[in-house]
Amino acid sequence: MAHLIPVTDPADPRLADYTRLRDVNLRKSLEAEHGLFMAEGEKVIRRAVTTGYPVRSLLMARRWAEPLSDVIGDAPVYVADDDVIEGITGFAVHRGALASMERLPLPSVADVLAGARPAGNTPAEDAGRDGRARPRRILVLEDLVDHGNVGAIFRCAAALGVDAVILSPRCADPLYRRAVKVSMGAVFAIPYARMADWHDGLAELRGAGFTLLALTPDQSAVPLEKAPVGERAALLLGTEGDGLSSRWLREADHPVCIPMSAGAMDLGVDSLNVVAATAIACHELMRSLPVGE
Amino acid sequence: MAHLIPVTDPADPRLADYTRLRDVNLRKSLEAEHGLFMAEGEKVIRRAVTTGYPVRSLLMARRWAEPLSDVIGDAPVYVADDDVIEGITGFAVHRGALASMERLPLPSVADVLAGARPAGNTPAEDAGRDGRARPRRILVLEDLVDHGNVGAIFRCAAALGVDAVILSPRCADPLYRRAVKVSMGAVFAIPYARMADWHDGLAELRGAGFTLLALTPDQSAVPLEKAPVGERAALLLGTEGDGLSSRWLREADHPVCIPMSAGAMDLGVDSLNVVAATAIACHELMRSLPVGE
Repeated sequence: MAHLIPVTDPADPRLADYTRLRDVNLRKSLEAEHGLFMAEGEKVIRRAVTTGYPVRSLLMARRWAEPLSDVIGDAPVYVADDDVIEGITGFAVHRGALASMERLPLPSVADVLAGARPAGNTPAEDAGRDGRARPRRILVLEDLVDHGNVGAIFRCAAALGVDAVILSPRCADPLYRRAVKVSMGAVFAIPYARMADWHDGLAELRGAGFTLLALTPDQSAVPLEKAPVGERAALLLGTEGDGLSSRWLREADHPVCIPMSAGAMDLGVDSLNVVAATAIACHELMRSLPVGE
Repeated sequence: MAHLIPVTDPADPRLADYTRLRDVNLRKSLEAEHGLFMAEGEKVIRRAVTTGYPVRSLLMARRWAEPLSDVIGDAPVYVADDDVIEGITGFAVHRGALASMERLPLPSVADVLAGARPAGNTPAEDAGRDGRARPRRILVLEDLVDHGNVGAIFRCAAALGVDAVILSPRCADPLYRRAVKVSMGAVFAIPYARMADWHDGLAELRGAGFTLLALTPDQSAVPLEKAPVGERAALLLGTEGDGLSSRWLREADHPVCIPMSAGAMDLGVDSLNVVAATAIACHELMRSLPVGE
């Protein structure tokens, strides 16, 4: 039975996990220091819990306690009026419920490439993954800074069947609240790891047999649908503004592009945003697998 | 030569066009009443001006006047310190320059389907369009409410070569500031029109020879890449939450889907966001044109 604790003071120290959710710098240090992250809304909280992340506490208006009662477990559930919640978080929480979740150790890049079970996964969850075997199609994100874009890319990856995601050392955190929310919980579903080293990070992927495809807006690159993809392929995606670093472009096996319309340049619109480009690229990448898989 | 007018008072009535840019309700009525829209940033302003939209006025920090001097023409240019600009607009304008532009009459749906020249286009601009002839691949947006999504869809459409966009009567305004900005100016580049009537709006498209393809997350629909597209095809896209109305789904010739990964359902991520889905769908739609076009 859920353990409901009414709170009325936004300064209540038991609510410290929920402080100023829109203050990116504060949140980064607070979450790192306490090893926590925020899940928002019934669907995402449910997803995080069933994936195996431990719940530190929850904060919600009382009306949300009932629909979540089956996943809450023993964690303290702070219930408060909307204005108290807004007082601590800094905004009106439309999705109704917040959960402070405990981070789990990320697997190593080697573990993810070998198809190891994600850290958070309970055995029950994992049953569905048995047929997945080791990853053959992965994304590699270099220094993306926008949490919304990172979340949207995880959602594309999960929906389209990408096996895993590898992050550069400076890439934005997939467990940051906005990334979790935009991903619709896909950040819990897709195994991911963070490279320890940007400079030599791609060598490990190549060593594991991956063809490295660098996605670029440069229309002189090979169209992705014609690229020699091979049995294992890693699609490298660069920052929103500058694209991939010149080092990674050089290190890749093939620069690949999504063909733009012949008239797009004349129209002054000569590129896609990173999420649209990723969606098309994932779709193409999965199409390159043998039929029936 | 640009006509620079220093302003120091955020309440200056000459700046009324720029009032509270983040107040959606205020802006909708203010822009409708005065027949204006906002363009933000050098690239987008330049695009709007060269497409033929008349400039009512500009507002910027003085440092931006020089780079824009060739497109400003005779319009008054209000120059002010950043805090004055923030005082009137309600936020820090990072892109540096704002232009209040005059709306032009939208063409009719029939005109757009016939490939008529967009209202704003100057003859010089239009030269590049001669080879375009009448539209063969169009998008139809039913009641999308998010201006960012509308802008992103226009950007996809322009980059991938979609010929035109038709909006349902209640679809969000492509010339709203956020849509313009996210589109990177593509809302000026792609001809579009708004249906007068939602109920019978699709009949006109069918009458013009378009095959109506209704994009749905329903995985029992035909994958878009296998759909019978025909010489003229219209892809119908529904709202962010509920998808297409049942009437439009019923009216369409074929429901079509983007195939999700077999494991996506198990992962709890069973759909793409509307922009990612549109990007993939546009890519497939353009691929269905005969090779070499």
